[in-house]
Amino acid sequence: MKGQTIFFDKPVSVSQVATIAGPKEGEGPLKDYFDYILKDDILKQKSYEHAEIEMQRRVIKQLLNKSCLNDGEIDLVFAGDLLDEIIGCNFALREFDIPFFGLYNACATFGEALILGASMLQNELAERVICSTTSHFATAERQYRFPLELGNQRSPLAQWTVTGAGGCILDKKEERGVKITAGTIGKVVDYGVNDANDMGAVMLPATLETLDAHFRDTGRKPDYYDMIVTGDLGHAGGRLLLSMIKEKGYDLDENYTDCGILVYNREAQGVGQGGSGAGCSSLVFCSYLYKLMQRGLKRKILLIPTGALLSKTSSLQGETIPAIAHAVSLEVL
Amino acid sequence: MKGQTIFFDKPVSVSQVATIAGPKEGEGPLKDYFDYILKDDILKQKSYEHAEIEMQRRVIKQLLNKSCLNDGEIDLVFAGDLLDEIIGCNFALREFDIPFFGLYNACATFGEALILGASMLQNELAERVICSTTSHFATAERQYRFPLELGNQRSPLAQWTVTGAGGCILDKKEERGVKITAGTIGKVVDYGVNDANDMGAVMLPATLETLDAHFRDTGRKPDYYDMIVTGDLGHAGGRLLLSMIKEKGYDLDENYTDCGILVYNREAQGVGQGGSGAGCSSLVFCSYLYKLMQRGLKRKILLIPTGALLSKTSSLQGETIPAIAHAVSLEVL
Repeated sequence: MKGQTIFFDKPVSVSQVATIAGPKEGEGPLKDYFDYILKDDILKQKSYEHAEIEMQRRVIKQLLNKSCLNDGEIDLVFAGDLLDEIIGCNFALREFDIPFFGLYNACATFGEALILGASMLQNELAERVICSTTSHFATAERQYRFPLELGNQRSPLAQWTVTGAGGCILDKKEERGVKITAGTIGKVVDYGVNDANDMGAVMLPATLETLDAHFRDTGRKPDYYDMIVTGDLGHAGGRLLLSMIKEKGYDLDENYTDCGILVYNREAQGVGQGGSGAGCSSLVFCSYLYKLMQRGLKRKILLIPTGALLSKTSSLQGETIPAIAHAVSLEVL
Repeated sequence: MKGQTIFFDKPVSVSQVATIAGPKEGEGPLKDYFDYILKDDILKQKSYEHAEIEMQRRVIKQLLNKSCLNDGEIDLVFAGDLLDEIIGCNFALREFDIPFFGLYNACATFGEALILGASMLQNELAERVICSTTSHFATAERQYRFPLELGNQRSPLAQWTVTGAGGCILDKKEERGVKITAGTIGKVVDYGVNDANDMGAVMLPATLETLDAHFRDTGRKPDYYDMIVTGDLGHAGGRLLLSMIKEKGYDLDENYTDCGILVYNREAQGVGQGGSGAGCSSLVFCSYLYKLMQRGLKRKILLIPTGALLSKTSSLQGETIPAIAHAVSLEVL
């Protein structure tokens, strides 16, 4: 580790991806990139929580099917979601015969999973791992804000939790493809924002610090990457990032975007500042971004999933909201 | 990885430990082994959740102080607790300038942290990491069962969530001491138990499967270890384990105990089947068990933190309770 950054010298390949998008996400600009678009967001289950569990189950199943692998050929699953006690993956993993590590870094969990997965491969401790995360609009609204049935008005700075699941298989294949080459692990940062409806502002300071650490540790400049994609700062948070990172001496204007911006058509879809959720960065990376890299259209992407580490208890107790962001360097090698 | 087991060939030392015990735990049989015993369980905070955050903060601080290290000398913290969205460690980590991975495997989280921490050291990806977990009786009762103010009667099979925090520093010191030599990663197992007051029965099947996998993968027999200590099956669960593991062909009678049994004096303290909680195995390992090893009284211990992967939402929706257990092989080398 150099500073906060781990370099993966041996090849860690992202060898397979799978995605399931909710109906709204399936009407957005990335619709042609998803493996599967749900017709509704309840999946014939008896609750939205069960629907989210089912999405997590299906995305892992899909990864196995697409790769013609069975449970025994996967060493480990690193998974997480936004539900209390991450029941989305706990219950989904009942259906698989694979060792499991549950993770929670809120919407930054996919970054955590990729870095831990890559670390296990790096030292030959594992041969093949799955990293997957999900989120669901209805379960997140109920848990963090209000049940949908209340019909609450949305704040102008609110983001829209993505209903979606994304997962990938990491292995040690040496042939040309998408590789994880470095990961910068974030610290918990809290600048005192306490508005649970303004996730962009909450996650911005952690994003700034992680990006700064990444550039410092790697000696790279932003133009090293073809794309720098934050997890889900959304439109307002993304604009703030572009202006504030200038103060740290970096210019991202050219190649910056955000998973929460990419996933919806803001004008047509009424999603406030854009998408968010633990499934947002995994859904966007495992579909659109991965395919851009596979087709050679982008060769170097820095993905920075960002997470707000609140709970409804901490919000009700008047706490501010800490945040974290992990940066993952993906390159076609 | 062989089966579910990772072998750590290069030395991974447990070089420092720290513990904070609640008042009840401080009256139990292990009282002389704890670093610090709290006089009350609210720590001058405005809520029990804040008290748990403070315990997590103090245990990490204590590890740094005892080792004369500052934040910058620790590469990574792996931490978790039982609170929704693990706010115990999220909020505690605001106070430290250390990269953070949040984990959730319920009361098995300490096992998860030790295995992941050891894995990062093994391949030179990190030099020194902290693993820590906490739990708090009052926050767990409110979150999973009933607020204490209701004065509910306790079920005869209920366990008592430990108020405590335990943490350790792992590094690559080569001199003689307590080393992590292997870790068996559990799978999610659900045999259909749905009684949130009977954690022993819930976690038993996962424990059996992980123990079986550990003995199979390592070729060891139970008598390889001086002690086999489950996370917190408690008295009822522990008795069940001893009888059921015989069916798998192993005999643990001689050297088996459980952190939930060790931590309280059952007759005098009115704790039902014994202790439980994410802080139970970390508190017991980082005090009593570690000191047994340090003094050469026990040289080989298999620690198996066990976790029940429920949430109040899953219980209210009538779901059964999945569980997981990770086994960590600790040896004086």
